[in-house]
Amino acid sequence: MKEISNLINYREGVKVVDATLRDGGLVNDFYFTDKFVRDLYLANIKAGVDYMEFGYKADKEMFDVNKFGKWKFCSEEDLREIVGDNNTDLKIAVMADVGRCDYKNDIIDRSESVIDLIRVATYLHQIPTAVDMIEDAHKKGYEVSCNIMAISTAQENDLRAALDILGKSPVDVFYIVDSFGAMYPEQLQRLAAVYTEFADKYGKKVGIHAHNNQQLAFANTIEAVGDGVDYLDATYSSMGRGAGNCAMELLLGFLKNPKYNVYPVFRFIEEHMNKLREEGVVWGYDMQYLMTGLLNQHPRSAIAFTKDNRKDYAEFYKEIIIMD
Amino acid sequence: MKEISNLINYREGVKVVDATLRDGGLVNDFYFTDKFVRDLYLANIKAGVDYMEFGYKADKEMFDVNKFGKWKFCSEEDLREIVGDNNTDLKIAVMADVGRCDYKNDIIDRSESVIDLIRVATYLHQIPTAVDMIEDAHKKGYEVSCNIMAISTAQENDLRAALDILGKSPVDVFYIVDSFGAMYPEQLQRLAAVYTEFADKYGKKVGIHAHNNQQLAFANTIEAVGDGVDYLDATYSSMGRGAGNCAMELLLGFLKNPKYNVYPVFRFIEEHMNKLREEGVVWGYDMQYLMTGLLNQHPRSAIAFTKDNRKDYAEFYKEIIIMD
Repeated sequence: MKEISNLINYREGVKVVDATLRDGGLVNDFYFTDKFVRDLYLANIKAGVDYMEFGYKADKEMFDVNKFGKWKFCSEEDLREIVGDNNTDLKIAVMADVGRCDYKNDIIDRSESVIDLIRVATYLHQIPTAVDMIEDAHKKGYEVSCNIMAISTAQENDLRAALDILGKSPVDVFYIVDSFGAMYPEQLQRLAAVYTEFADKYGKKVGIHAHNNQQLAFANTIEAVGDGVDYLDATYSSMGRGAGNCAMELLLGFLKNPKYNVYPVFRFIEEHMNKLREEGVVWGYDMQYLMTGLLNQHPRSAIAFTKDNRKDYAEFYKEIIIMD
Repeated sequence: MKEISNLINYREGVKVVDATLRDGGLVNDFYFTDKFVRDLYLANIKAGVDYMEFGYKADKEMFDVNKFGKWKFCSEEDLREIVGDNNTDLKIAVMADVGRCDYKNDIIDRSESVIDLIRVATYLHQIPTAVDMIEDAHKKGYEVSCNIMAISTAQENDLRAALDILGKSPVDVFYIVDSFGAMYPEQLQRLAAVYTEFADKYGKKVGIHAHNNQQLAFANTIEAVGDGVDYLDATYSSMGRGAGNCAMELLLGFLKNPKYNVYPVFRFIEEHMNKLREEGVVWGYDMQYLMTGLLNQHPRSAIAFTKDNRKDYAEFYKEIIIMD
């Protein structure tokens, strides 16, 4: 039975991380209006959300600033334009991808920044570089998480080796990232047991970032809470790459800590999210994402299928089965 | 850990029940084209689905035959028009609601019918009438299930009393019906333990019919499989009342019995389900259904909200919180 099995109590250590701009930005190239971002910031504050991830710290040498909205880069000026000095309880996070971030130059000292948390996103085979980024961010004064992507394709022994390396680094949170939306709650439970084993050993926390390919992002997230996972990613209306993420409205409806309030989330969705869809931004559960999730594949083929406005699901299934 | 916890094996006793016409009929008043119904029948056969529920046996004294499609009534002639003598492995089911079915007259002997399974739908306080219907159907030669609706509002002691009465009846399957989409997998696990306790005592099977208000219909269904529940309801593209049901495409993707095949499901969805939506038939996860699920309320207010094309989620939330 789960730690919070009566479903009536809560655990103080649980933190909710709004990843709407960052993961959602992947489906609209980060072109959010300032009003959207400011309203989201205010909604998060009212809802009691713990962290708001504004986007990436992407390398401007690699990515053309004219082809993406500003939240791909999250400059200090752009952040302050929205949050001022952020004199609130809501902490600010950004993501830094291994191999796509000039972290030594683009991440300044925390004392000069409104950012609180650097989320280092890595594949398992990039852990040594991730550790260098973690050390850099920690030295600059930040909280740091390490988000290990595509975990549904990892060998358990490799994962254990990685968590042992990360355990000795100054990282604060190990993240389970089900990038492919391929995992079932039962598998999540076993994976969480491996993560928490190393987290307990090294005094770290564990987080989860789920995708909704099989409509299990919320189910996997609440499974994880019951397994001792503390940092929970969610996005408004599930907005995120492909099938999207765990829905913020579901998660805040579920969590029982009185500091959380789902009502501002409903208000924000009413004002902004349906409009985004009407403007043609596409995300969320659909057959092509279910298929890549089922086959434990990267969603890139399903994203291309979506972009091409294809609806020939059966043909697509044959294509990816052949590639499998 | 679950009985099928390696997720790689399967249990022979698991049965998949397609409820698309019956639960889906609630959102289009059962006006399906014959082509839709025939293609669905063929898709179910190819997919290895075990039972196909065609609709209700509704009382024509109570319901105007001019206001509903024929699957509200499921006459023997209409069934045979689609399935002939049904010389296939797919069994035929219909639902009979307590208080809305003239079962003594409208359900004929199984020897003269293509129907195999009568699903008696009841609220907990109607169990004695349900038992009368069960005895009637059993005497006529049918397999019989008892689908106890709105189970998320039941007191455990009342449920135990009901299952003890049903255990002594000739019913074959006890059904968990989360009509309000209010249950979390953990609660489902505890509820399944109560059901299976009585099922084991009396030699019955257990089934589950889930709703997707909190995007947990599939998660609750696979939780239930792991808890020993054998009869699993699903609908193509989740089509069903309000937020809809456990998606057939998710369920057949998950189940490992080689007799199941998800490909015909994808083909059917491609040909028929998106078209239904384009024609204006509305179902599926949305804020209003999440809200009634969260508050463990009947979805009727959310259905009215949907029918009125309202999108003022926050106002609706206030309305139902006040009624709560």
